[in-house]
Amino acid sequence: MKKKGITYILSSPSGGGKTSLLKRITILLPDIKHSISYTTRSPRRGEKNGRDYHFVAPEYFQDIIKNEGFAEWAKIHGHFYGTPLDSLEETKNQGVDLILDIDVQGARQLKERFIKGGVFIFLLPPSLDVLRERLINRGTDSDQEIRNRVNNAKEEIQQLSWYDYLIINDNLDEAVDNLKSIIVAERCKREQVLSQIKELFL
Amino acid sequence: MKKKGITYILSSPSGGGKTSLLKRITILLPDIKHSISYTTRSPRRGEKNGRDYHFVAPEYFQDIIKNEGFAEWAKIHGHFYGTPLDSLEETKNQGVDLILDIDVQGARQLKERFIKGGVFIFLLPPSLDVLRERLINRGTDSDQEIRNRVNNAKEEIQQLSWYDYLIINDNLDEAVDNLKSIIVAERCKREQVLSQIKELFL
Repeated sequence: MKKKGITYILSSPSGGGKTSLLKRITILLPDIKHSISYTTRSPRRGEKNGRDYHFVAPEYFQDIIKNEGFAEWAKIHGHFYGTPLDSLEETKNQGVDLILDIDVQGARQLKERFIKGGVFIFLLPPSLDVLRERLINRGTDSDQEIRNRVNNAKEEIQQLSWYDYLIINDNLDEAVDNLKSIIVAERCKREQVLSQIKELFL
Repeated sequence: MKKKGITYILSSPSGGGKTSLLKRITILLPDIKHSISYTTRSPRRGEKNGRDYHFVAPEYFQDIIKNEGFAEWAKIHGHFYGTPLDSLEETKNQGVDLILDIDVQGARQLKERFIKGGVFIFLLPPSLDVLRERLINRGTDSDQEIRNRVNNAKEEIQQLSWYDYLIINDNLDEAVDNLKSIIVAERCKREQVLSQIKELFL
């Protein structure tokens, strides 16, 4: 039995702190790969093509959909987001652990497709007021957009009942420690370890 | 819904490194309580009554059995070991997390009694040769006892198929990090977190 890579799926409402958390976790656990999504939205200040997202034209995105190149895709706040299928299959078979940063709609699609495996983690703001403040401080959205995002967050939070783990992002250090712990613990699950030690003992 | 304490059950063959691991983890996570078992064996060098075990006479141990005071008990290498029931129930209802250090037989009894909840963790030596070496270096057992313990370990390791997590104790620092991660991750499981945040969002 060869070790299969574990797929971790991280969702959070917009402004939940996913990006900062992922940056920290990939430094802390360099053996975990972060899958880069495709999007049709424009880069925000500081975002880099190929690092944060593959920023592509709507036509290009539609082509990938037609060619069944996405494991999941969704339209959020008027823009398309999608996870490329190839990286998902490849890393899994190579025994590499992968972390995906996907919204609730997309995560749901993955959950339905990948019945076995897939660790679903939801990152929550400590409250909706804090979320609103963070979006205001980010300074990239209009008042109307912020209202939409907060309303959206309310709906997304209703969906957390099918996630495996919840992390409250009250303090970034603690959220990082929680996410790291979840990743390490999943690697210690019986079936994961057994696939590596069978020849030693049994 | 009030938070219930999580019960962690740690098993390992004799010489597997449970004691050192538990010492480290209770320093690292002072909010987790370590349940002190009862035993009829004599204290080893450095062991302290009431800290490592409650060292009691065989008659006293039998009395607790008669009064149904144990959550589980077992006879191992000629001595009795038992986990007091009262601490288990109390901490759970108080929302306190508890770690129990129990052999495979006793853990099995707990698994059958406490169907819901209970996180079962098995600590493995990296190999049987390493286990033998550790027992020799401990210097507390005769050659015959060491042979018995290694044979026993072989049988116990066959039982790991019903444990939730496996930790290979190759390097103590890593084993501590793994155990800590398991404890933290279990606290992030959906149902655990939901019991604390419902009023915030829903």
